[in-house]
Amino acid sequence: MPRGRTAGGAASPARGRPRRKETDHSIHGAALRLLRAGGPAAVTVEAVATESGVAKTTIYRRYPDREAVLRAALKAAITAPEEPIGDTPREKIRWSLDQTWHQMSEVLGRGGVSAIVQNTQPAFTRLFRSVLTPYADALVDLIRGDMAVGELRRDLDPDTVVSLLIGAYLGELVRRGRVDQGFSEKCVDLMWGSMRGERPSTDSS
Amino acid sequence: MPRGRTAGGAASPARGRPRRKETDHSIHGAALRLLRAGGPAAVTVEAVATESGVAKTTIYRRYPDREAVLRAALKAAITAPEEPIGDTPREKIRWSLDQTWHQMSEVLGRGGVSAIVQNTQPAFTRLFRSVLTPYADALVDLIRGDMAVGELRRDLDPDTVVSLLIGAYLGELVRRGRVDQGFSEKCVDLMWGSMRGERPSTDSS
Repeated sequence: MPRGRTAGGAASPARGRPRRKETDHSIHGAALRLLRAGGPAAVTVEAVATESGVAKTTIYRRYPDREAVLRAALKAAITAPEEPIGDTPREKIRWSLDQTWHQMSEVLGRGGVSAIVQNTQPAFTRLFRSVLTPYADALVDLIRGDMAVGELRRDLDPDTVVSLLIGAYLGELVRRGRVDQGFSEKCVDLMWGSMRGERPSTDSS
Repeated sequence: MPRGRTAGGAASPARGRPRRKETDHSIHGAALRLLRAGGPAAVTVEAVATESGVAKTTIYRRYPDREAVLRAALKAAITAPEEPIGDTPREKIRWSLDQTWHQMSEVLGRGGVSAIVQNTQPAFTRLFRSVLTPYADALVDLIRGDMAVGELRRDLDPDTVVSLLIGAYLGELVRRGRVDQGFSEKCVDLMWGSMRGERPSTDSS
């Protein structure tokens, strides 16, 4: 791992600042990797030191304990969802769903998601959830907007739709142990009829 | 906790048998309660002894280690789903879904479900999953049967439907920390249009 240019440091007057930020970045990254692989219990100062290459004394100078490390790492990982990309309402919903699944698969990972399910550290569950919530809320808002303009059924319950769509990832993970590329498209395709507010065809028995 | 009638035991010739079964039942029940609350790591012989009131030496006479206790408890908890109850295909699907959710909420509990999500002990993940799989398979079969008789769309993908429906429980749990009574009905109601194969209404914009 490159340690940055230490020689000639005196030439840079702002030397201390970027170094501090860089170290925090390493600590947070290590904490999140440990969380994803082993859940919150795996995030100890000892393990973060080993995983990040940052000395334990340096970590303790910044954070009083492992919980403070985990809290800072999660807060740094909370991002706001971007504007959905797509030409149609369906494409935008699909895109937003992929972003939401990404928060579970890549940011929280299995360790973080299972910590929410198990709720073993209630003080942390809210923080874990806050990595996901802005994305779920954005999906709800997107659906609500489509309902308002008549693209989607006006009597739809967007919260049930979003729990179904977010949950599909977890259902597939629990049933099969993995979620294949393209599964989100299958889910949105399947749900679309119900979301559009289609009515029974008359030619069916 | 009642310890059964120990006095006058000599009057019962088959005394050893029911006692043995009863003890196993206590051990399995305790192991499952510990699993639900704290995940597989919480199932130690020490904890099972405390929780069940069965002496550690008695447990070790039956099981070589904690993994054997957990394995036996899970195997005892694997049940075959019953014939679905209901007057209509929709009621039967709803009933079967409730049974499947029950396997997650009451049999595996949060500890067991999160162990599948996290997959920390891959040797056990398959066993945890086998508490759920027969119920998921029964739902798939039920939907397939309804497709065959034209009750449901013939081009439906029953596996995607089942992952969505099973996942809805997990999606709601992850988003809100609880799943309210009646949520399965909301989910089936919402999915029903897509499952029936309804076609776009002509009066919508």
